[in-house]
Amino acid sequence: MSASLGIGLIGLGTVGTGVVQLLREAPAAVRRRKASFEVRRVAVRDPAKARDVQLAAGVLSGDAEQVISDPAVQVVVELTGAPGAFGWIRQALQAGKHVVTANKAVIAEHGDELFDLAAEGDVDLLFEASVAGGIPIIRSLRNGLVANHVESLYGILNGTTNYILTRMARGEGDYAGILAQAQAAGYAEPDPAADVSGADAAAKLAILSRIAFHTRGTPADIYCEGIEGIEASDIEFARELGFAIKLLAIARQASGGRVEARVHPVMIPAESQLANIQDEFNAIEVVGSAVGTQVFSGAGAGRMPTASAVVSDLVELAERRRRGASTSIEDMILGEEAVGFADICGVEMRYFLRVLVEDRPGVLEQIARILAREGISIASVLQKERDLEGGAVPLVIVTHEARERAMQQAVGAIDALPMVTRGVRLIRMQEL
Amino acid sequence: MSASLGIGLIGLGTVGTGVVQLLREAPAAVRRRKASFEVRRVAVRDPAKARDVQLAAGVLSGDAEQVISDPAVQVVVELTGAPGAFGWIRQALQAGKHVVTANKAVIAEHGDELFDLAAEGDVDLLFEASVAGGIPIIRSLRNGLVANHVESLYGILNGTTNYILTRMARGEGDYAGILAQAQAAGYAEPDPAADVSGADAAAKLAILSRIAFHTRGTPADIYCEGIEGIEASDIEFARELGFAIKLLAIARQASGGRVEARVHPVMIPAESQLANIQDEFNAIEVVGSAVGTQVFSGAGAGRMPTASAVVSDLVELAERRRRGASTSIEDMILGEEAVGFADICGVEMRYFLRVLVEDRPGVLEQIARILAREGISIASVLQKERDLEGGAVPLVIVTHEARERAMQQAVGAIDALPMVTRGVRLIRMQEL
Repeated sequence: MSASLGIGLIGLGTVGTGVVQLLREAPAAVRRRKASFEVRRVAVRDPAKARDVQLAAGVLSGDAEQVISDPAVQVVVELTGAPGAFGWIRQALQAGKHVVTANKAVIAEHGDELFDLAAEGDVDLLFEASVAGGIPIIRSLRNGLVANHVESLYGILNGTTNYILTRMARGEGDYAGILAQAQAAGYAEPDPAADVSGADAAAKLAILSRIAFHTRGTPADIYCEGIEGIEASDIEFARELGFAIKLLAIARQASGGRVEARVHPVMIPAESQLANIQDEFNAIEVVGSAVGTQVFSGAGAGRMPTASAVVSDLVELAERRRRGASTSIEDMILGEEAVGFADICGVEMRYFLRVLVEDRPGVLEQIARILAREGISIASVLQKERDLEGGAVPLVIVTHEARERAMQQAVGAIDALPMVTRGVRLIRMQEL
Repeated sequence: MSASLGIGLIGLGTVGTGVVQLLREAPAAVRRRKASFEVRRVAVRDPAKARDVQLAAGVLSGDAEQVISDPAVQVVVELTGAPGAFGWIRQALQAGKHVVTANKAVIAEHGDELFDLAAEGDVDLLFEASVAGGIPIIRSLRNGLVANHVESLYGILNGTTNYILTRMARGEGDYAGILAQAQAAGYAEPDPAADVSGADAAAKLAILSRIAFHTRGTPADIYCEGIEGIEASDIEFARELGFAIKLLAIARQASGGRVEARVHPVMIPAESQLANIQDEFNAIEVVGSAVGTQVFSGAGAGRMPTASAVVSDLVELAERRRRGASTSIEDMILGEEAVGFADICGVEMRYFLRVLVEDRPGVLEQIARILAREGISIASVLQKERDLEGGAVPLVIVTHEARERAMQQAVGAIDALPMVTRGVRLIRMQEL
């Protein structure tokens, strides 16, 4: 039995508490790996506050830097959403400490700098918990699918938005109503902006894309659109067409060695596996050159699922270090050369357009003319006889495959038509 | 760059050819790991036969033992379904060679002996490809979910039977007709017995159960029932009840530290993820103490998916050996003490019973009396007015949760009733 690995924890909230609990339970599988851990220092904002787990006297501290600099700490486990997190992680790596974190924002925003730092210092930076909770997707991309070029990756990476869309699809209310319910039930934050805007999913996609495609870059490079504009009627139209609406994070190999990465609502076939991921669950569909299509699904958040991912990182770290690792995690992640993101304007797909128009002759003709001018071919039109808002009727158009750039131009032109009462709501469509 | 790992391949069929191709393509991720392989010897039945891959002169041999004993070979990759496979794997381990295999039968039947041998010789025996093709399920159980006690595991592990059941559910024919189609399409073997009887799934379950629960034992310890008796009408009844029928391989923690393991057709809720695994695809649902429910799905067979799993094992082996592994794979797999299998008679679940009875008064009463005597409570009864076979009508009963032992006794008694035209077809039900 080798000596214990000394852990310094920053943050003892939901996930931190789960990690301490899991390490104490020490499942047989962890013991069998001869991995042994000791939580030596824990930094919290308020050391006087009552905690769900008991810690020995002197372990708790109000100062993260004390945890980082403690010579008994070999691994810093950062589990806060605090503004100081990036600084602490950087400081720990610079001090020659390994780091395990669940902090998607820091890894997504500052991954380039942090991985370089870790590689220079010959320490490891692990972050399985930063994407999709307990689903071992980063490990699977890195190890299980190592013999594959990843061709594409489709993720339901945000539980809050999936919860809202699932409930809307069950007819339980409109966007605002379900969001309020989700907030009451604790599935949505008091300020839901990061979730519903797609920003949270984009941060996770930046991380997955780094592993799968070796991209560099930050979430700002990823096209991002949220679910705020989705109406119950869109979901109804989708169902009639045999589709469901999900907020997907998509990364795909594009031409010129670039990677197309985007987060937005997507209509996907109702019978596809991702369409059947319900409530707050997460899932990732990976298409690999050798394995074909695989789907990984499970709880994407929560105390114990996230803690499970953190502990799996700790066990890997203990094994790597005991053996004397000769390749760093960073070598596996950093590409031989930086891969860039492609502009979404070059992407081709099918589109669903909903537009509210005045109910008079010639409207469809004018819209059809604009689409034709942009080279966009119409697959089907749905115009129902119903008066929704003062003489206006919703017109729904599904196109054949078209280029995003052309579609954006067409949308601009349609929105400018005088008989258009409310502009185009565009939902992209994806066969899976 | 460390020296190449010398590979000796036994078998150059579908999967073996895929492995040679994948190693030659060497995806960037493999290169980045500084893993390097050289296929030094290949044993085939007929060295004169034309091959899909070109090999250097002198590499091909007709003799597996030559491959094993070649000092340039450090890893023996066994990819035959040949009767000699167990002997070759044993011989390789005894000769101090690492072994990677896709051979589920050998690992399931002889795992106890082979893992002990590997542990004694300080060599590794890896077998990701033996279960569910390219889905990294063994690796995920071992690493990603290392911090979990596995509570239960439900697998669609046989592509042939899932293909047949999917096509039957789509109304494309009855069991015999679809099986014949599947054979023509290459989805079923000319002799389908191992697949349709559940034996193939039971072998894979024995392997998964070894990893998840540290059981010892062979497929003979696993209760096994195939899909041969499933009729189109059963699937129709299931659909009316909101269920789908799948051949599931189930392993669950039982009382007394034992593990309940069984393979049989199961009715599962139509909206569950496993119910929506179509055609020849495989999937495994794992319930872990920390992560909750996770599902892994993908292609369960085929050249490149299986080769992908073999190469992922080779990369792990190269990394472990370069570093000087201090825990063996076998330490992770072998339990601290052998875990035994529970008798299926102690299992409790709901049951679907279909029985063909004479259409006259008192029949239902007699059957209900037998069930009541065994303490089995009826949840619903479906008796349709239709004359299927000469005056006999199908009676369908769904029970509340009951114990298998009681149900077996009830079935025996019902089958002995004089008005029963054709005995009970029993399908177990499982909420997922």
